[in-house]
Amino acid sequence: MVVNGKYTHGGDVYSREVSLDFSANVNPFGTPEKVVSAIYAAAADLAAYPDPYCAPLREKLAGMLGVGPRDLVCGNGAAELIYQFALALAPQKTLLPVPSFSDYESALTAAGRRAEHYELRRENGFEVTGDIISKIDSDTDLVMLCSPNNPTGRCIERALLLDILARCRETGTWLFLDECFLELTDSDKAFSLTPYLRENDRVFLLRAFTKAYGMAGARLGYAVCRNAAMLDAICAVSQPWNVSSLAQAAGLAALDCPEWPEMARELFKTEKPYLIGELARLGVSVLPGDANYLMLSGEPGLAAALAEKGILVRSCANYRGLTDGDLRIAVRTRRENEALIRAIGEIKNA
Amino acid sequence: MVVNGKYTHGGDVYSREVSLDFSANVNPFGTPEKVVSAIYAAAADLAAYPDPYCAPLREKLAGMLGVGPRDLVCGNGAAELIYQFALALAPQKTLLPVPSFSDYESALTAAGRRAEHYELRRENGFEVTGDIISKIDSDTDLVMLCSPNNPTGRCIERALLLDILARCRETGTWLFLDECFLELTDSDKAFSLTPYLRENDRVFLLRAFTKAYGMAGARLGYAVCRNAAMLDAICAVSQPWNVSSLAQAAGLAALDCPEWPEMARELFKTEKPYLIGELARLGVSVLPGDANYLMLSGEPGLAAALAEKGILVRSCANYRGLTDGDLRIAVRTRRENEALIRAIGEIKNA
Repeated sequence: MVVNGKYTHGGDVYSREVSLDFSANVNPFGTPEKVVSAIYAAAADLAAYPDPYCAPLREKLAGMLGVGPRDLVCGNGAAELIYQFALALAPQKTLLPVPSFSDYESALTAAGRRAEHYELRRENGFEVTGDIISKIDSDTDLVMLCSPNNPTGRCIERALLLDILARCRETGTWLFLDECFLELTDSDKAFSLTPYLRENDRVFLLRAFTKAYGMAGARLGYAVCRNAAMLDAICAVSQPWNVSSLAQAAGLAALDCPEWPEMARELFKTEKPYLIGELARLGVSVLPGDANYLMLSGEPGLAAALAEKGILVRSCANYRGLTDGDLRIAVRTRRENEALIRAIGEIKNA
Repeated sequence: MVVNGKYTHGGDVYSREVSLDFSANVNPFGTPEKVVSAIYAAAADLAAYPDPYCAPLREKLAGMLGVGPRDLVCGNGAAELIYQFALALAPQKTLLPVPSFSDYESALTAAGRRAEHYELRRENGFEVTGDIISKIDSDTDLVMLCSPNNPTGRCIERALLLDILARCRETGTWLFLDECFLELTDSDKAFSLTPYLRENDRVFLLRAFTKAYGMAGARLGYAVCRNAAMLDAICAVSQPWNVSSLAQAAGLAALDCPEWPEMARELFKTEKPYLIGELARLGVSVLPGDANYLMLSGEPGLAAALAEKGILVRSCANYRGLTDGDLRIAVRTRRENEALIRAIGEIKNA
C-alpha cells in the first residue's frame, strides 16, 4: 500500500468526487453476477485460512490454458507477481521499453536492480520495433514486455514477438510478458505466447482477472511459467496465504463466464471507432491502439479540467517519455463515452 | 502461495476431509455478521481498484490505538507484513527465539538474511527469560518476538518486555513484536507495546484481524510503527493495491464489533481450564499458556490418529526444537472441545 505522498496510478476514485472513471481500464460491464455470488458464498466461511495452493483454481485454469497446474502461480493481483518475479530473479541487466507500466521499474528497484530503457518513440506510434532484437545480448538477464502496452495500447506483432522469443533463447535471457489486457484486445491483434511455453522455460507470462472480469477490488492474477525453480523461488518470497479465499472463489466463478470479456470486445468494436472519430472532430489526437483503452495527446491541463467536471482520466505525465498533454482513457459504454466527449467539447470551447 | 511440496502450517482443511479444525487459532465464534454484510456490500463495487491508502481503515484504527494514520501500514494479512518488513530492513544480525512462527525465518531467508537463534527451553516452559538481554548488543540489528508466542502460547512478561525495549534503544536495535494473538489472550497477561511507541521509533508492532474477528480468509493485518522511513521502505517493496477492497470493508466493520474478541475471551475462561483438566486426566501434558491455543506434549502419532478421525490439530514436528509429540490445539467451543477430548480418550484407550 501507499502510506505517504501522491498516488500515481489510475483508478483513484477515493481522494476526490468522481462521477465517471475513465482512468481504470476494466471491463465496462463491471463484474459478472456469478462472481459476486461466489464471493457471497465464500464470505460464509471467512474464518478459515485460504487454500495456500489455490488448488481448484489452478486446476481449472490449467485445463483452459493447456498447461499443467504446476506451471501456474497465483498472486494477490497480477501486480504482486511483478514484485515477486523481480525479487526471485534479481536480474543484473534488464531491458525495459518505456513508457510502460511503472510498477515494472518499481519492482526492479525493490529488488535492488535497475532497468536499461528501450525508448518507444512517438514518431513510431510508440511501437516496439525490430531494432529491439539487437539490444538483447548474452548479458541481458531479462526483457520485460507488455502487450498491449500500458498506456499506449499497442500490441507487439506476432512475428516480432516470436523473433524476440527466439533471440532470448539464444542469449539465455528471461522474457517477462504482461498479457493482462490481452483478453480485452482486438482479437486479430491479440497474440498470446501461451502455446509457446512448452519449449520455453524462461518465459514468465502474466495474466489477470482484474480487467476482463471487472474484479480489481478482489485482487487476483496469475502467471504461467514452465520453470519449477522459478516458481519455487517466487513462492519462497511470498507468504503462503497471499490469495484470499474470496479471490479464489471469484476467480473460479469468472472462468465460467467466458461471455464477459467477449461482450466487452463486441462493445469496443463500435465504441472505439466512435471515440476516435469524436476526438478527432474535437481536434484531439488519438494513438491507434489495440486495447480497451486509448492514449490521447491533448493540451496540457485537460485531465485537470475533466477532474473539475467529476470525470477521472489517467494523466500520463508521470510516465517516462510522456507529458502532461498525454492522457489514457478507458473505452466504456456509449452513454459514458458520450459524456466524456461532451465534457471535452465544453472544455475546448470554454 | 505454495506451488509444490508439503504444506507446513495449520488450517489446511483443503487437502483432506476435516470435520473439526483445531489447527487454526481463530475466534471460535467465527466471523461477525457485520463483517460478512460489509463484504456483501463491497462486492457490489468489485470492478474498482482498492484504495491504495486504506485511508478510512487507517483513520479508524489510528483513533482506536491512539496513534496517527501515518504510523500505520496495512497488509494482505499480517503475514505479508513480515516479509515486507524483512525485505525493507534486511538486517545483518537478527536474534530470534525458537520455537516460533516459521514465517519469521522464511521472511529473513527471502531477504537473503539469516537469524541467530535464542533457544527457548522446555524446562523453562519455553518462556523468554531475562538472559535474552545479554544477547542483544550493538551489532544486533533486529530482535523478533511474538507475544503470545506461537506455538507455545507464552506471553512475554511486562517487565521483561520493557527491559528488552530499553536494551534495544541502547543498542540501536529494531524490535519486531508480533501481537497478532494478543486480543484473544488472558487479559491480565496481555501486555501491548502500543502505548510505548511514541518514544520508540525502532519498534514494529504487528497486529491482525484474522484471529480476533475470524477473518483469515479475507487477509488483513496491520503494523504500527513510528518511523516514516521504515514505512516508506515497506511501501516501496509492495504493489499499491495489496489490501483488497473486500478486506478493507471487512476491517472497518470488524472495528465496530469490540464484543467479538471479548466474547471469545469470556469463553476461554471456562474452556481453557476444561481442556487443561481433561487432558491432564488423560495423561497428556499441557503447557500453561496465555493464548487462545495450547501446546500439548503427547505421544508421537497423536496428530495422525486424530486426523484419521477427521480432527485437524497442528503437529509441531516442523518447529525448531519441538518433536512429533508436540501439538498445538486451538481452544474452541465446549461441544468441539468435548469432541476432541473424546477422540483423544478413544485413541489412548485403543
